Amino acid sequence: MLSEFELIKHYFDSRRTEGDQITLGIGDDCAILQPHPNKQLAISSDMLVSGRHFFPDADPVGLGHKCLAVNLSDLAAMGAKPVAFTLALALPEANPTWLEGFAQGMFALADEHDCKLIGGDTTKGPLTICITIFGELPHGQALRRDAAQVGDDIWISGTLGDARLALAGYWKEHTLSAELHQQAATRMHRPTPRIALGQSLLGVANAALDISDGLIGDLGHILDRSRVGACLNVDLLPAGPVLAQQTVDLRRTFTLAGGDDYELCFTAPVHQRVAVLAAGQSSGTAVTRVGSIEAEPGLRLLDAHGQVYQHQLKGFDHFTSD
Amino acid sequence: MLSEFELIKHYFDSRRTEGDQITLGIGDDCAILQPHPNKQLAISSDMLVSGRHFFPDADPVGLGHKCLAVNLSDLAAMGAKPVAFTLALALPEANPTWLEGFAQGMFALADEHDCKLIGGDTTKGPLTICITIFGELPHGQALRRDAAQVGDDIWISGTLGDARLALAGYWKEHTLSAELHQQAATRMHRPTPRIALGQSLLGVANAALDISDGLIGDLGHILDRSRVGACLNVDLLPAGPVLAQQTVDLRRTFTLAGGDDYELCFTAPVHQRVAVLAAGQSSGTAVTRVGSIEAEPGLRLLDAHGQVYQHQLKGFDHFTSD
Repeated sequence: MLSEFELIKHYFDSRRTEGDQITLGIGDDCAILQPHPNKQLAISSDMLVSGRHFFPDADPVGLGHKCLAVNLSDLAAMGAKPVAFTLALALPEANPTWLEGFAQGMFALADEHDCKLIGGDTTKGPLTICITIFGELPHGQALRRDAAQVGDDIWISGTLGDARLALAGYWKEHTLSAELHQQAATRMHRPTPRIALGQSLLGVANAALDISDGLIGDLGHILDRSRVGACLNVDLLPAGPVLAQQTVDLRRTFTLAGGDDYELCFTAPVHQRVAVLAAGQSSGTAVTRVGSIEAEPGLRLLDAHGQVYQHQLKGFDHFTSD
Repeated sequence: MLSEFELIKHYFDSRRTEGDQITLGIGDDCAILQPHPNKQLAISSDMLVSGRHFFPDADPVGLGHKCLAVNLSDLAAMGAKPVAFTLALALPEANPTWLEGFAQGMFALADEHDCKLIGGDTTKGPLTICITIFGELPHGQALRRDAAQVGDDIWISGTLGDARLALAGYWKEHTLSAELHQQAATRMHRPTPRIALGQSLLGVANAALDISDGLIGDLGHILDRSRVGACLNVDLLPAGPVLAQQTVDLRRTFTLAGGDDYELCFTAPVHQRVAVLAAGQSSGTAVTRVGSIEAEPGLRLLDAHGQVYQHQLKGFDHFTSD
């Protein structure tokens, strides 16, 4: 069996890279970053646990992609440009096939965004993956959760709900044809971080976050931190192509309280509508206007007829949603 | 039961802090750091797994201390000044007593080093703790593993082996009085990161690392990366106060191939001996000269009589040392 050091060396250390902003990469007690002058560093950590965030038998290539994608999505939500990441990995065993697939999926996405592995840790334990990611931001321009303004439009990138629909298929909550389930599952396993859109929204949008635990709960964070309320038209929410073929009830439920969407929810002044559409176009990402920020606290949901939409939905909570 | 958001808010979010270098702390998609001009950022990640790095019933206060201490030790080994850290935590349950103790131990050490919690993640799963830490370094002065020079003295901070001796007590490999075991165990559970010494060695030492997996294996990393060899006098190695009372054989074994020491091993030119001793004194840390760097590859061990010390020791490996 490979030793820990051999294992790390083979799959990860070979990716050692120094260069722009990276003075020292993998292999020392610390990596060393040299940020550009007048730039800020955006930092996010996410931990993914087997059986919780992914199936224990998940395809390692897809898993490598997804672990990095959820972290890139946090950078996208601030408008940051990816620079580097660290990877801490607990593995039940040193399985070369698994590691090769995982490294392949992770580095394909990392290379696409020119984001370099600069360090980390490997240990034995229940399969757990913790990535900490670093991105660059122009000074003072981050898209923060606390910056929504009364009167702002609320926008959503891409589409919502297909990842949650795929999960409903796995859980037998809902029946889909094999073809449609496969299509929805791709969305669940291979989310696309909205990196280009996030950067295009700098100076255009006010507040932003990424939707990982369902729109209702996540938008709630913007409302709380910005001390505002909002009104959404639930029938304007962009449903994924598979979800769009299901009942209205299911469409509303999974667009509002899905999970694993990794789309951006952002607010922008009304006078920026053209600029937002241009940002969407230049980044190749659909953007849909779904509501507006209001002074009155709380979240109000209306349907296409202007009627109040009654619901008992909430955001996903890792400790109460068993 | 507390929800995930309430839990995080109660124990961690209350520590939200913005200030010098920290533009945005906990509570957004990313934290934002604004490094000082002309400084570099040292970054390290460590993952600690229950049953692997600590006992499942470990005292949470001690565990909170140790998790941060091992990361601070990586900063110390580069000569970096602590700035901030992120915490990703997988917990089997939201237990307020455990969390309160863990937060207490972690923040006591964090406050001592003015190191701020700026973000992270909490999820349900087998108890796993991943900290990524950030420190500041003067441009180009880091104590790297690849910088040892032929002729350098090899130095060790503090003492080695008491943590390994405590483990031998827990494992019933070795019998100690309750009092001595308690004394050794304190060393195992509450390591002291050599932060002040690390910074004092900037411009004085050439190479450094922290000893976490046993001196032989860790010094091997300096030798490999610097493409040099070394000679150590095993009877000069500073044994912990409890280990010093045991047999010569045990003393040699546990100073050479212990683990969990979190002392610095560093190399410095002979003409810096006075400066190294001054750095030890100013930081209140014992420093002991134990050998020298040589051109011939490999590690040679001699005893107090100049005889070759025969051994079959090696560094700890998380995948082969079961």
